[in-house]
Amino acid sequence: MANPPIILVRPQLGQNIGKTARAMLNFGLTDLRLVDPRDGWPNPDAGPSAAGAGEVLDKARVYPTVDTAIEGCSFVYAATVRSRDMAKPAATPREAAAQMRGLILAGENPAIMFGPERSGLTNEDIALADAVLTVPINPDYGSLNLAQAVILVAYELFQESDVTPAYQPAHPDGLAKKEELIGLMQQIEGILDKKGYFKSKDRRDTQRRTLRNLLQNAEFSSQEIQTMRGVVKSLAWEDRE
Amino acid sequence: MANPPIILVRPQLGQNIGKTARAMLNFGLTDLRLVDPRDGWPNPDAGPSAAGAGEVLDKARVYPTVDTAIEGCSFVYAATVRSRDMAKPAATPREAAAQMRGLILAGENPAIMFGPERSGLTNEDIALADAVLTVPINPDYGSLNLAQAVILVAYELFQESDVTPAYQPAHPDGLAKKEELIGLMQQIEGILDKKGYFKSKDRRDTQRRTLRNLLQNAEFSSQEIQTMRGVVKSLAWEDRE
Repeated sequence: MANPPIILVRPQLGQNIGKTARAMLNFGLTDLRLVDPRDGWPNPDAGPSAAGAGEVLDKARVYPTVDTAIEGCSFVYAATVRSRDMAKPAATPREAAAQMRGLILAGENPAIMFGPERSGLTNEDIALADAVLTVPINPDYGSLNLAQAVILVAYELFQESDVTPAYQPAHPDGLAKKEELIGLMQQIEGILDKKGYFKSKDRRDTQRRTLRNLLQNAEFSSQEIQTMRGVVKSLAWEDRE
Repeated sequence: MANPPIILVRPQLGQNIGKTARAMLNFGLTDLRLVDPRDGWPNPDAGPSAAGAGEVLDKARVYPTVDTAIEGCSFVYAATVRSRDMAKPAATPREAAAQMRGLILAGENPAIMFGPERSGLTNEDIALADAVLTVPINPDYGSLNLAQAVILVAYELFQESDVTPAYQPAHPDGLAKKEELIGLMQQIEGILDKKGYFKSKDRRDTQRRTLRNLLQNAEFSSQEIQTMRGVVKSLAWEDRE
């Protein structure tokens, strides 16, 4: 699992540090780093809002500067509200998550830093980043708080793969080949013909198509086709002396 | 843009209703419905935590029951912490978002409902849903609050591109509206009650829920509901001389 550090740069409220820890742990992130938190550390307001994610707070490390907090990291994302014109690659949380998984597989150490609640990261902070991370948001109303921005990034990191889930066949042993299905249809139709099921020449085509649709939509496996053929045969059995 | 209703079922705290409005508007959702909010409505605690998303609160509509809140909707997701064994399709927020975009393109009206903060949706509530929506989460620590669950769903809906193919409705003529389905359920339940189908007061709820799930999962079209109502009526017909 990807577990990149979440770096809060000069966070203001202890409550938001606690909420960030909770957001992180929900998606398996545990490496919290604090750069120069306004009210010092530990902060008594953090624990209550962490809702059981105290372990993340207990392990949090404090650094005096961004420079020192990103030591050991090899690729840093700077979360910003708008992708400022910083001549840096921009990524959405989804793109960043995919990139980070790739980076980690390649032996790199990515990290994401978030700025203070009110003002966000400074251009000075962002200058230390490799890429800018921006959440696509309602252009007429952008009001994500710190923990919400973190939870969206953490959520994206937790998603295993971005691709559409594989088609789940109804049968682990696979669907029947079409020739098997058609064999069953022909068997049934032959018997029905003999027994006078089809009311008239006109209606026969419609009745037959209804029946074929029904059998088709049942998505039988090979094994089930065999069973069905046996059942049909037994049903039609006539004991002739 | 997809703008399906967000239905909060029996929400407890006004503050969480406000946070939900904020989470919604960040990603362009504006249709908030409240089912029987514990502290009534309007709630003075909602506004301050909505952080400028007051327009969503102002337009929120209140309903006495889930039945009435989902009127006009044709496909309902029930958000649950774990995908309970409800014999309903389960979707992640990402899958549900892709499905909802497809549903909307197909002219359907999807909605998502969330349960009360403490207890979540009841099985009775979930019986009215077409699918269960569950956020994949750290199995050792799941502590998403109401507004966080909403924001993840809203965020996914806001993502523009998605490779998931459009949802293919079972019926080219569209799914029935929920009030049509509930009408059928009530018709059947009324007759079953009269005919003594329900064994005991205790078992009635379970039998009724089983029946509702079964009818729900059949994914009837409007036309089929009409047919079913006729069939049920005929079945129950008693010729009294």
